[in-house]
Amino acid sequence: MTVMSGGKGVAWVAAQVRAAVEAYWAAAGARDWSAFAATLADDMVYDLPQSRERILGKERYVRFNREYPGGRQVRIERIVADGEGRQAAARTLVTLGPEEMHAIHFFTFDEDGRIAGVTDFWPEAYEPPAGREHLVERY
Amino acid sequence: MTVMSGGKGVAWVAAQVRAAVEAYWAAAGARDWSAFAATLADDMVYDLPQSRERILGKERYVRFNREYPGGRQVRIERIVADGEGRQAAARTLVTLGPEEMHAIHFFTFDEDGRIAGVTDFWPEAYEPPAGREHLVERY
Repeated sequence: MTVMSGGKGVAWVAAQVRAAVEAYWAAAGARDWSAFAATLADDMVYDLPQSRERILGKERYVRFNREYPGGRQVRIERIVADGEGRQAAARTLVTLGPEEMHAIHFFTFDEDGRIAGVTDFWPEAYEPPAGREHLVERY
Repeated sequence: MTVMSGGKGVAWVAAQVRAAVEAYWAAAGARDWSAFAATLADDMVYDLPQSRERILGKERYVRFNREYPGGRQVRIERIVADGEGRQAAARTLVTLGPEEMHAIHFFTFDEDGRIAGVTDFWPEAYEPPAGREHLVERY
């Protein structure tokens, strides 16, 4: 069975979604802000649920990234690309000097394949609670 | 264009992946551990990168969930289902009494549609750093 969406296959949309996420990170990594802006819808929304912060619009979001302290290296660990929902999730490992952090990113896309929404999470390291040592290995 | 995988469409696999994630949460929510176990591959691996904990195998993982303090309510906020990679990502909102937490879950699947890997993240609330008030709204 093959479900079609808008005359194009789900696999085609998923591949487009994956390519858009890769272009977004490549442009951010190169600090190429015009290429970065080209991946975004004008009225995109950026969300940080942990700090309850929101940035409205491409212009402000590009500026937010441009002004962000540089020197970070971002390595994409996984991209999950959804052809049906025009959405994606990604895991990255962000290195800044000796510090290494996991980051998680959810994307939604408009009909032109531009990023309409980005939601970022920054989970921090913690020590495991007691009581589950009999089931768990540490690494 | 339609990419086929193993004789079945990508959309079909994505729908199967989505259904498996929903079955996993439904069984966990109902504390129906045999239904929960049925969603998992025998040699599945559970990963908590923040605490560097790992659980090997379905048996231990079911027990980990069974022994976990109850009373949590889990609301699925988003599922991203990837038909090509047999993987998925999900965002949930977990409520325990007055406490509300975001959780993020990455899944991989074996060829039978069973969950082969689960990686969970628990990002905590934080106060925004200074210097970006000109770009950001709080909610």
